[in-house]
Order: sequence, then C-alpha cells, then structure tokens
Amino acid sequence: MEKVKAVIIVSGGMDSATLLYKIVKEGFDVYPVTFNYGQRHVREIQSAQWLCTRLHLEDKHKIITLPIKDIVSNSSLTSDIEVPEGHYADENMKLTVVPNRNMIMLSVALGHAINIKASRLFYGAHAGDHAIYPDCRPEFVQAMSVAALLADWHKVNIEAPFLHMDKGDIAKLGLELGVDWSLTWTCYKGKEKACLKCGACCERVGAFQKAGMRDPLVDRETWDQLPIIK
Amino acid sequence: MEKVKAVIIVSGGMDSATLLYKIVKEGFDVYPVTFNYGQRHVREIQSAQWLCTRLHLEDKHKIITLPIKDIVSNSSLTSDIEVPEGHYADENMKLTVVPNRNMIMLSVALGHAINIKASRLFYGAHAGDHAIYPDCRPEFVQAMSVAALLADWHKVNIEAPFLHMDKGDIAKLGLELGVDWSLTWTCYKGKEKACLKCGACCERVGAFQKAGMRDPLVDRETWDQLPIIK
Repeated sequence: MEKVKAVIIVSGGMDSATLLYKIVKEGFDVYPVTFNYGQRHVREIQSAQWLCTRLHLEDKHKIITLPIKDIVSNSSLTSDIEVPEGHYADENMKLTVVPNRNMIMLSVALGHAINIKASRLFYGAHAGDHAIYPDCRPEFVQAMSVAALLADWHKVNIEAPFLHMDKGDIAKLGLELGVDWSLTWTCYKGKEKACLKCGACCERVGAFQKAGMRDPLVDRETWDQLPIIK
Repeated sequence: MEKVKAVIIVSGGMDSATLLYKIVKEGFDVYPVTFNYGQRHVREIQSAQWLCTRLHLEDKHKIITLPIKDIVSNSSLTSDIEVPEGHYADENMKLTVVPNRNMIMLSVALGHAINIKASRLFYGAHAGDHAIYPDCRPEFVQAMSVAALLADWHKVNIEAPFLHMDKGDIAKLGLELGVDWSLTWTCYKGKEKACLKCGACCERVGAFQKAGMRDPLVDRETWDQLPIIK
C-alpha cells in the first residue's frame, strides 16, 4: 500500500522534533518544511537539518525563506531588541510574538502540501503556548483547518496532535520515541550553549525535569544546580 | 476623529484598483500591499505602484516578495508552461492556479495589518473567480475571517466587498469612482499591449463591454473589432 504523504513544519525545537519522530514511526511519507523568517540566529535551522538527516529525510526537506522580517518591527525574535529573560508567563515575553507567524507558516506549508498532493499537514502547537500566543490556541487551529479544506480542490487536513499536551508530556513522548535531543535547539539566543535564562530555556528545562531526565544540551554539573521549574 | 487604518491587497488589476478607490473615498487611512510572487512579468506590480502614486499613497505602499515560486512547480503563472488562451471557464485555465496563493497573501497582509494596528484588511475577490479558484469562494473568505480574528489579540476584520459582484459590476462601480483604468493591468502576458486572448483579457474585455465603455488600454479600432464576450 502506498504511504500517505504528509508535510510537517519542523523548527528544530523539541515539539516539532517529537512530532517528526512520531509521524515517521506511524509510517507517513514525510516531507519536512523549515522556515527561515529572519530569526536572530540560524542555530535552530541547523537543528532542523540535523533531525531530518538523522531520519534520512534530507532529500525531502525544504527550507523556505519567509518575508516576515519585512512586516515586523517590534518583535525581539527578529529585531535588535534584547531578548527578555524569565518565564514565558511573564508579560515581557509578549515581545517575542511575531505577528501572525503561525498563519503565515501554515499557509505556505499548505501551498507546498497542495503542490505535492500531500493529504496531511502536521504542526507542533501545544498547550503551553496558549497563554501568550493566540495562534497556538485550539480554536485558531480549528479555524485554519476549516480554511485549509476550502482553499483548494485538493484536500489537506491540518493536524496538531500536541494541542492538548504540555511540554513535559511531549518530552516524555519524545523519550519513548527515541528522539535525539542533542540535535534539537530551543534557546532564543543563538550562542554555543543554551542561555538557560530566556523563557524558551526555562520551559525546556521544566519539561525535561518533568520527564525525569537531564537535557543532553546541558552538562550534569550545571543541570544539578538548576532550580526546579514549576 | 482619527481615520480607521486599513490594509488593502493591490494587484494592479481592475478589482483591487476599484476597491482601492472605494476605500480611499470612504475615508480610511489606507496602507496598500502588493505581492511579488514570481509572476512572469512585473507589469502588474508597476500598475499597482502607479495606482498608489495617483492616490498619493506611495509612501504607505509596501511591496512584499513571497516565496510562492519555491513551492509551486505546475502553474503557468510562475513557470515556463505556456499561458493557456481562452475563456476562464475552460478546463485548461486551471493551469493558472497557484496553490494556496490567496491564503498566503492574506496571512502576510494580516501580519502587516497587525503590526501597524490596522483594523481592516480589504481584498478584491469577486464572484467571477469562484468556478476556477476555490480560494475566491465566500466560504473560504468567511473561514479566513474567523481565523484572522483568532490569530492575534489585536483584531483585524477581513473584508471582501466584491464577493458577490461580477467583473461587469466592478467596472461600473470603478467608472463611478473615477478609476483611471489606463493605470491598471490584467493580461497574464507581460507584453507592451494586452494580448486580448488569455482568460484574464477575455474577462476584462467582457467587463468593459458590460459597463458600456472601451478599455483605454485598447485602441478604438481594435476594440470595435472584438467579439462580444458573454
């Protein structure tokens, strides 16, 4: 039987890495897409490439440059504003919102899916993002799924299977699936090591703590000294 | 009273030109956006620039390059396949569909609208496009409007006021509004003169015939010899 073609948005972070391993294991014919939207650093794009290569998908992996930087002037993810430190829930983390980023990424990935006649489009939005990012909420994903089914005669289902999981659940699932976490990247700062201070790092550390394992990107000594993230 | 900020997608064609004149007349603070998606020619982008300059909007006009060409391989609008001639309703016109173009353009324009805190996003989808382009149907526009209101804490209303008008109605409205048709461009081929044979030209000629006027892009002698388009 022919495999079902699926496009997946792979950022290089934990969520999309876990989802990538999941759908490969489930037997889909997987076409990963990574977006370059003028991030401060290309470290996470490199991680996406490493993950795809590890899963022998490098020939099907597309890196697409988006014009998001042109339309955005007030986000610290794509401009020279300092990346705020602290937990995601802090008000200052709103600085990291790129207006409409998820809709833009989904619509371009959907165009790619339609073009190659894929019938699924996977992305890794999860519950932990809801508070800050309106476009990670289930109702947004639902509305985009409806629009996707109307956008073309060829039907593509948008699926976000982690929508009701938190990052700790995702870390546990990734552990079961054998995700090589050392290939992933989460920190908003593109330095050699994760800063362990930005909101993204705090959430990642908390997720590994919940899964009961050390993040392989952090050495044991440093890991043991980190506070417990609630 | 402060004017309401509105973003509008301006292609350089008749529909968006008419909509542009309409919302300027209605008193919106207008920010036009034109997309370069690897069209065969830049003739229509030039028309968009002329229209914006005529309405003194050149400083607010943004031209954004989209990565659509990268994800599309089988459309004659962006590749080397011959542009089909004949009426839009012909089956071969389906070749001119760029997968998910409207969703991509809307999502990027919406990001721009959110960024500048506009509260409206106008685009010129109209009834004549329904048969061939699924993403010109009212149900698609409705689904995108719902998604747009969920995508960000800042609310932007997507509006397509020509959704239930045909191109003849739009030509009549444009005539009332004083649209300078000589600045617009419709032909799929980017030559010096409109080819008057492609589906876009056929539809434009029919619209002007219905409005009871000559297309100023066509000289009188040629115009009088054209067949009546139903």
